[in-house]
Amino acid sequence: MEKFQVSLKKVVDDSYEICIGEQLADQMINDLMSGLVGNVKKFAVITDSTVKPLYADPVWECFRELGCQSDLFVIPAGEEHKTREEKARIEDEMLEKGYRRDCCVVAIGGGVVTDLAGFLAGTFARGVPFVNYATTLLSAADASIGGKTAVDTPLATNLIGLFYQPKKVYIDLDAWKTLPKRQVISGMAETIKHACLADREFFCYLEENMEKILALDPECCHEIAKNNCRIKYEVVMQDERESGLREVLNLGHTVGRAVETVSDYQLMHGEAVAIGLAAACVLSVQAGILPAEEAKRVCLLLEKAGLPVTVPSYVDTDVLLKKLYTDKKVRDGRLRFVLPEQIGRIHQVADNDFGFPVTEEQAKSAILAIS
Amino acid sequence: MEKFQVSLKKVVDDSYEICIGEQLADQMINDLMSGLVGNVKKFAVITDSTVKPLYADPVWECFRELGCQSDLFVIPAGEEHKTREEKARIEDEMLEKGYRRDCCVVAIGGGVVTDLAGFLAGTFARGVPFVNYATTLLSAADASIGGKTAVDTPLATNLIGLFYQPKKVYIDLDAWKTLPKRQVISGMAETIKHACLADREFFCYLEENMEKILALDPECCHEIAKNNCRIKYEVVMQDERESGLREVLNLGHTVGRAVETVSDYQLMHGEAVAIGLAAACVLSVQAGILPAEEAKRVCLLLEKAGLPVTVPSYVDTDVLLKKLYTDKKVRDGRLRFVLPEQIGRIHQVADNDFGFPVTEEQAKSAILAIS
Repeated sequence: MEKFQVSLKKVVDDSYEICIGEQLADQMINDLMSGLVGNVKKFAVITDSTVKPLYADPVWECFRELGCQSDLFVIPAGEEHKTREEKARIEDEMLEKGYRRDCCVVAIGGGVVTDLAGFLAGTFARGVPFVNYATTLLSAADASIGGKTAVDTPLATNLIGLFYQPKKVYIDLDAWKTLPKRQVISGMAETIKHACLADREFFCYLEENMEKILALDPECCHEIAKNNCRIKYEVVMQDERESGLREVLNLGHTVGRAVETVSDYQLMHGEAVAIGLAAACVLSVQAGILPAEEAKRVCLLLEKAGLPVTVPSYVDTDVLLKKLYTDKKVRDGRLRFVLPEQIGRIHQVADNDFGFPVTEEQAKSAILAIS
Repeated sequence: MEKFQVSLKKVVDDSYEICIGEQLADQMINDLMSGLVGNVKKFAVITDSTVKPLYADPVWECFRELGCQSDLFVIPAGEEHKTREEKARIEDEMLEKGYRRDCCVVAIGGGVVTDLAGFLAGTFARGVPFVNYATTLLSAADASIGGKTAVDTPLATNLIGLFYQPKKVYIDLDAWKTLPKRQVISGMAETIKHACLADREFFCYLEENMEKILALDPECCHEIAKNNCRIKYEVVMQDERESGLREVLNLGHTVGRAVETVSDYQLMHGEAVAIGLAAACVLSVQAGILPAEEAKRVCLLLEKAGLPVTVPSYVDTDVLLKKLYTDKKVRDGRLRFVLPEQIGRIHQVADNDFGFPVTEEQAKSAILAIS
C-alpha cells in the first residue's frame, strides 16, 4: 500500500461589511458596479413575490440600464417555499438564461430569500458571490451574520444547506415600515432571544422601549439592528462552525422549529421561536437552572411584543414531541436543549457544550405547561 | 448609515491522505473506528447498484457488527442518476433513518457515487465528514483530488455542486479487475488527458505499456494511480478554486461534456472525454498552436486504448455545437477551450488564463473534422 499526502492548509478571508441605514439600494448597486465582486456584469436578483415590486424591480431595472445582464427570479412568499424544489427551479431558470460561474447573486428580501439564495449561490457553478439586501427585521437579525444558508425538507427545517458568507449585507431599516404588523412582531422574537442569551442590559432596553420599537421609531430600529449584529457576531466569531458556543443561538429553536413545522407554517418563524423560548424557560425552571421570576420576565416581554408564549390549540402535542427528535442537536437519540440560567446568560453543561440533555418526560412536561 | 465589520479571516486545513493499494476496506473501517472523523458512530454508506454487492455490503455489515449505526443508500448505476433528485431522495432517507450532523458519509463506487455523495455530505446538516472509496479507474483519476463534487441537471453537467474535501481517499486497485472492459477503457481517457496536459514522459510510458495496462498488470495500475494523483495534485495545489491554472484539467471536457449529454449518456464519460480530447487537438492544430504530428500521436494513443476519437453518427452536430455554450468556461457568450501546445504542455493565453477564445465557426470546423 502506498500513501499520497494532499496538503491543503491555507488562509481564508471571508470578511465582509454590514451596512445599516435607510434606502440602501443605490449604495448596493454602486458597490457592485465598482468592484465589490470583481469584474462581474451579470446579476441574478432573487426575491419573493411580496418584495418584488417594492425593492427588487428597481434594482434589476437599474442593472439593465447600466448595461449589465440582470434577471429577476421570484420565490412565492412564505416559509413553505424555502425548498430544494424552488432552488432547483431557479437554478434551471438561471442556466436557461445563460448564467454561469461569472455571475453574482443578489438576494433581496427576508430570511426565506436570503437563506435560499445564499445556499443557491454557494452551489451554483460550485460557488458564486452573493450579497444580501435584508428587508425584514427577522432577516436583519438572523441572516446577516453567521453564513448559515439552507432550505427546508419535509422532514426537517434548515437541515440541507451550507455555511457560505455573503460579500456584503445591507440592512434597510426603511423597509421595516412596509412590513405587516404581524411580521414586525414576529421579527422581534430573534431580538428578544439575542438579549436573553447574551445581554441583560439590552433586554432591559427592550423592556423599556417596546412600544417605541413596535412603532418603528428610527433610533430604536438602529439600536436593534446594531445590537443584533453585535451579539450574533460575538457568538459566531468565537465558533464559526457551530461546534459549541454557537449552539446558544439555538435558544428557543428546538421547540420553535418543531412547532413551526407541525403548525404547517400557520405560525411565523418568530412566533414559533417565541413559543420555543417560553418552552426553554419553563424547562430551565423545572430543571432548577433558571429562577422562576426570570422566566416570567421573558414571557412578559414576549407578550408585550405581541408574541405567543403558548402552543396553539390546533397543534397536537404528541406530534410536536415526536418532531423534536428531528432537531439537529439530538445526540445519540437524546434531546438537547439550550437553556438560559439567567436573562443574558446561557447555562453551560460542560466545556464548550451548551446542549442540556432532556428526557422525553421533561420535554413533555414543559410542553404541556405551555399548552 | 452605519457600518459593521465582520472579520472572518482564518487558517483552514483540509489536508488528507490518499491510500493506493489492494483491498482497503478493512483499512478504511479501521481508520473510521479509530478517530479519523472524530467520535462519529453513524455511517451512511452511499454506493450504486453495481458496487453494492461487491464492496458496499461488507462495509455496511461490518459497521453494524462493530455496534455502529449504519445504513446503505443505493443510487441506480449510471451517470444519468447523478441528479438533484437522487441527492434529495437519499437526504430524505437519511433524515428518516435518524442521521443528523453527527454522522459520516462513506462513498463507495465510481465517479457518480463520489461526486454525488461528496456533494450530499457537503450540504447535509451544513456539512458532515466524508471518505471516498474509489472502485473505478475513472474515480481514482478524477474524484480523489480536487474536492470537486456535483450533480448534473437537464441543462448542464456538474454545474450544481461544491468544493468539498474528503477526510481520506482509498483507491482499491483490485476493484479495477471487477470492471467491465468498456469501463476500464473509459477510465483511461482521464489518464491520457493528464499525460497530455502535464507530463510527456508519462505519455511515453502509456504508449509503451498500453497493452499491459489494459490487462491490469498490478505494477502498471500502481503507476497509473500514483501519476494521476501526482499530476492532478500539482495542478490543483497551485489553484484550489479553479481561477486559472486549474482550468487546464478541463482539457477535452468542453466538447466532452457536451457530447456526453447530447449522446443521452450512450457515451461513457471517458469515451466522451476522448472525443473531446481529439476535438481539442484538432482545434489546436487548426489554430496553429499544436503540431499536427503531436495531435496524431494523441489520437493514436486514444485508439490504442480502445477509445473513440470521432463524434458518433447518431449525434447531431448542430445540437452538439449549441450545447457547447452551456460550458462553465463560456465567458461573455464566447467559447473558451483548453488547448495543448505540445504533448505535456497546455497553451497559455495570458497570465493565469488557459481558456483560448474560439469562434462558433472554428468549433464547428473542428467538430466536423472528427465527425
